[in-house]
Amino acid sequence: MTELEELAGRLRRFAEAREWQRFHTPKNLAMALAGEAGELVAEFQWLTPEESAAVMGDPEAAARVRSEIADVMIYLSRLADTLGIDLVEAAHAKLDEGDRRYDVETYRGTIKKAPPLP
Amino acid sequence: MTELEELAGRLRRFAEAREWQRFHTPKNLAMALAGEAGELVAEFQWLTPEESAAVMGDPEAAARVRSEIADVMIYLSRLADTLGIDLVEAAHAKLDEGDRRYDVETYRGTIKKAPPLP
Amino acid sequence: MTELEELAGRLRRFAEAREWQRFHTPKNLAMALAGEAGELVAEFQWLTPEESAAVMGDPEAAARVRSEIADVMIYLSRLADTLGIDLVEAAHAKLDEGDRRYDVETYRGTIKKAPPLP
Amino acid sequence: MTELEELAGRLRRFAEAREWQRFHTPKNLAMALAGEAGELVAEFQWLTPEESAAVMGDPEAAARVRSEIADVMIYLSRLADTLGIDLVEAAHAKLDEGDRRYDVETYRGTIKKAPPLP
Repeated sequence: MTELEELAGRLRRFAEAREWQRFHTPKNLAMALAGEAGELVAEFQWLTPEESAAVMGDPEAAARVRSEIADVMIYLSRLADTLGIDLVEAAHAKLDEGDRRYDVETYRGTIKKAPPLP
Repeated sequence: MTELEELAGRLRRFAEAREWQRFHTPKNLAMALAGEAGELVAEFQWLTPEESAAVMGDPEAAARVRSEIADVMIYLSRLADTLGIDLVEAAHAKLDEGDRRYDVETYRGTIKKAPPLP
Repeated sequence: MTELEELAGRLRRFAEAREWQRFHTPKNLAMALAGEAGELVAEFQWLTPEESAAVMGDPEAAARVRSEIADVMIYLSRLADTLGIDLVEAAHAKLDEGDRRYDVETYRGTIKKAPPLP
Repeated sequence: MTELEELAGRLRRFAEAREWQRFHTPKNLAMALAGEAGELVAEFQWLTPEESAAVMGDPEAAARVRSEIADVMIYLSRLADTLGIDLVEAAHAKLDEGDRRYDVETYRGTIKKAPPLP
């Protein structure tokens, strides 16, 4: 069992022990994920890019960022589990596409959105 | 090397090959993550809870949901890597806290937000 | 002066009195808006559609929803002001487009996304 | 009738003509708003703060930003209308609170989050 399967299993048991399955629809879990992503982005909203790069040097800010990232991971893992999606596999499939869409020569130093693949 | 370390490594090399490191500040990656979480929530916005639970039965919707979940995973993994945070470890630490905050008797069938730990 | 111009003016003076102009870049205000939108969506995440329609009947939930909506409005107004965009005019322009994209016969009872205009 | 009441009325008629009322629950509208806020934040994600301040000088980027801001305004207006909330009044009430929480001397040049009012 991979570490992600283990995490998904713990989340499943956490929800089942509290009879939360009826709350954990994909719709609701996507909302919870968006809410946590909002809290995470709020941690960085007034920081300069340079301050954001140094955020882990401030113990209080680091603890908040780590906690928000954990919340996003928890809902992402739970959502993927309810939908039967393998997170790492899905990410690699998207990156295979990225390798084709963002060829190294054209996109060196330029991060514009590529046109969709034909 | 775990599958998450492998994914983070691939993302790092993807960014380095295109000289995108200066774009990949924690601030910008948190924004990209929030943007993708927005696209994911949009996939479910007009669905009933029941329709959302059946979304993987529709091949086109399933492909879009899988693609949006992959995008969230990609930016979450990249953000955690730039900050030196272990996603699975951080999630387990938050769940340890959840075990204490959401005791099974009090929260059975009730998903209200618990007060912070003392 | 319209009520929206008055609100934008009050927000401008609020920021200037505290010398917050350097924090209020469009980038940062868009982040703050996304963060508040995340808090707003979180208010509804575990509610059934029916419960969400009755949310204003619960005084505590109503106060939280009103407060989150106010926060979104504040950052939206401030962002539009820094960019020189008229919120109501921009909304009407988008609705003119919506009138053409979503013709009444085709979209009656169906809320699928329309293809872009040619 | 204020310009915001007029906009809300147009949106109400737009939804009624297409029989979309059952889709427009507060839960779903909050999701749509979060989705659009995500698209807006994505417009700024790779820009430096300085580039974000100059975004309206680029006609294509300006049109996209204006369109995303319009979408946020549309869903915010529609959501407030379904809940019976006056957007401008709610924003002023929150600013009254802000005047008390963020006193000018303490917060000059500092944008940290204030503690809640007693």
